[in-house]
Amino acid sequence: MSHTAEIIAVGTELLLGNIANTNAQDISQALSGLGINVYYHTVVGDNPQRLRDCLETARKRADIIITTGGLGPTYDDLTKQTICAVFGRPLELHPDVVEEIRAFYESALHVPMPENNARQGELPVGCVMFDNPVGTAPGCAFEEGGVHILMLPGPPNEMRTMLRRCAVPYLRGLSRETIVSHDIMVFGMGESSVDALLREEMCRMKNPTLATYAKPGEVRLRATAKAESPERAEEMLSPVLARVQALLGDVVYGIDVADLAQVCLGLLKERGMTFATAESCTGGRVAERITALPGASAVYRGGVVSYWSEVKADVLGVPREILERCGAVSEECARAMAEGARRVTGADIGVSVTGVAGPDTDERGTPVGRVYIGLATPTGTFCRRTDHGSRRRDRIQNVSANHAFDVIRRYLTGLPIE
Amino acid sequence: MSHTAEIIAVGTELLLGNIANTNAQDISQALSGLGINVYYHTVVGDNPQRLRDCLETARKRADIIITTGGLGPTYDDLTKQTICAVFGRPLELHPDVVEEIRAFYESALHVPMPENNARQGELPVGCVMFDNPVGTAPGCAFEEGGVHILMLPGPPNEMRTMLRRCAVPYLRGLSRETIVSHDIMVFGMGESSVDALLREEMCRMKNPTLATYAKPGEVRLRATAKAESPERAEEMLSPVLARVQALLGDVVYGIDVADLAQVCLGLLKERGMTFATAESCTGGRVAERITALPGASAVYRGGVVSYWSEVKADVLGVPREILERCGAVSEECARAMAEGARRVTGADIGVSVTGVAGPDTDERGTPVGRVYIGLATPTGTFCRRTDHGSRRRDRIQNVSANHAFDVIRRYLTGLPIE
Repeated sequence: MSHTAEIIAVGTELLLGNIANTNAQDISQALSGLGINVYYHTVVGDNPQRLRDCLETARKRADIIITTGGLGPTYDDLTKQTICAVFGRPLELHPDVVEEIRAFYESALHVPMPENNARQGELPVGCVMFDNPVGTAPGCAFEEGGVHILMLPGPPNEMRTMLRRCAVPYLRGLSRETIVSHDIMVFGMGESSVDALLREEMCRMKNPTLATYAKPGEVRLRATAKAESPERAEEMLSPVLARVQALLGDVVYGIDVADLAQVCLGLLKERGMTFATAESCTGGRVAERITALPGASAVYRGGVVSYWSEVKADVLGVPREILERCGAVSEECARAMAEGARRVTGADIGVSVTGVAGPDTDERGTPVGRVYIGLATPTGTFCRRTDHGSRRRDRIQNVSANHAFDVIRRYLTGLPIE
Repeated sequence: MSHTAEIIAVGTELLLGNIANTNAQDISQALSGLGINVYYHTVVGDNPQRLRDCLETARKRADIIITTGGLGPTYDDLTKQTICAVFGRPLELHPDVVEEIRAFYESALHVPMPENNARQGELPVGCVMFDNPVGTAPGCAFEEGGVHILMLPGPPNEMRTMLRRCAVPYLRGLSRETIVSHDIMVFGMGESSVDALLREEMCRMKNPTLATYAKPGEVRLRATAKAESPERAEEMLSPVLARVQALLGDVVYGIDVADLAQVCLGLLKERGMTFATAESCTGGRVAERITALPGASAVYRGGVVSYWSEVKADVLGVPREILERCGAVSEECARAMAEGARRVTGADIGVSVTGVAGPDTDERGTPVGRVYIGLATPTGTFCRRTDHGSRRRDRIQNVSANHAFDVIRRYLTGLPIE
């Protein structure tokens, strides 16, 4: 039995464009992992009549309705009242919930609970309550006429916690099947090439399934199996993962990993090695990507953003002769920058990026999108030249940062680099 | 006459949770600036029957329908076909549009146009075409039975460009009123404090109106006036801007500017000055923010990401005595880092960031969220200490990068820094 869900976000702030509806994204990802189809997202303001219309429409086309928002204490928080009116369930006050909210105010917020917060202790008769450990509004779920209604809070951190701890287990209980997914991460092959290699396979497969998701310069392949047990699902997935890896080869940089920076952090930690950066056109993006990860200091010593040639020479020690003869955007300069980063920081590995991110070509007429990636290691220095199809500055910068991590990954795993 | 709009995003990737619906947010902001009400956002997959249902519902409750996505060349891009079927408009092929797409492929992407892209040259009879300077799919708009339908592409950068250049002017043409907005940008005062200072004013105002939009560590205030002419609208707005600036003071860092980095780029260019960075806990974010802007090389020489203490000492010349006595997260170290950045790069100004971004405290027990911002200038060295309420690593890093730009702005405009 396959379920169909609809996500209804309630909040005028979404219709004004103050925030993006990231809650719908988070819930959709979770539902996709549970094998539940999502056919619609809807956003509606804090308006009971329009919310009522949305609910009437949703109950006709979905058997799971998940709402976010409108559970707060103020007069315009009307989700519970409206849902109860549409589905014919009265609300009842839970004094113990009110006491919990009161305790949360006093211990976590250090202020007395405003009395209108007591409304948050009203819940539909016979519902399953969802605890809210990071806020005051509890969520809940009930079933009426074959439709399951789940109410989650609007603030994204509260929603995410309740989704993971309460809503996902509730929804898993609705199905006897298990869904298992694995993400195969690809860098160095475009979506259309991945597609061409796997299209026939993907079209033929019913269970497991295989789908591609592209983001600038990267492809994520998700393999998903439904089975009666997790063990059986893993058994079904294992030949698919092996087959994809065999077809795509070493452009697969990991399975179920977040990104290339995370992979490099793991590889460097395993080997007890450190690295340093020398960035020109990426202007700090490689450094920023690694330092976004908790624990980066175990492997990342630091780096230089050598935007001006003088900084390349004075701080990184790039020979002036190279800058004059070959220019700052050259293989020679990339190699000298990587070696400089390694030398001045004492790291095991130095990685460098120098190129033309645009909008204009450099003074030598090097085309926008030409970028050199240098890698200095205990066993020699390497260089990769890349030419980006796009002329978009942010895309060139972000994909180039990925190339920097890719050369580190390939070096540490013994793969060809250039 | 007040218009009501509905935004329909078409794309299975949204229902799978691969991306958030930022297009709906961007369009909602633009519509809010035009005084157009938005009552619903809908997301629907690449499925013609379900899209048709959404369009039938939308035409009953809105007089402006804006779709995003589904304008691409592949078999599952069905927005134009479905809209034309629902509204009874045939499609016609525009050979000149096909030639433009072919030229875009050859000049920007350096590959021949795949023949199925010719479908993108089909447009509804009698529509207004919207150019797509950053992609291949043109958008369009037409009116049928009192309802205006606008079709915009799905990729956010293409959508934003077309929204600004084509859709907003089209929508402005539907009204005889002119709407003018100005954004007042605030850093250094929280949303609740801004709100407390302006709430009474904001509630009382009908035209112009004033609204706050918060993002981490920043507040944007939008003042909007409706009038019979742009000149009249500006006349109405000018006392509001003056009053807000008088109430908020020097936390207002600009009007109609993108962000603090953009303001610093402008101020430094005007003064013919350059700056350099020394970053520890922000790990390259200050460098990344300035180098994201075209033309950054006029004012930004480069910097050092001194993640390890050894790099602070060896590359920036922070005295080892300071690192041992005061620690890396200290006013003394921030000052020495800023001076080091200035010295090693030869820039007029050096700015530094050192702090604890978490998740753990440093070895001296400095709390997560304590960050020092140093500023070395021709007229002396300054330091600002900040304590972030949040313990979120990305938030501490991003807000700290804003502080770095804020101290530069305040120095260059003669305001107190510390």
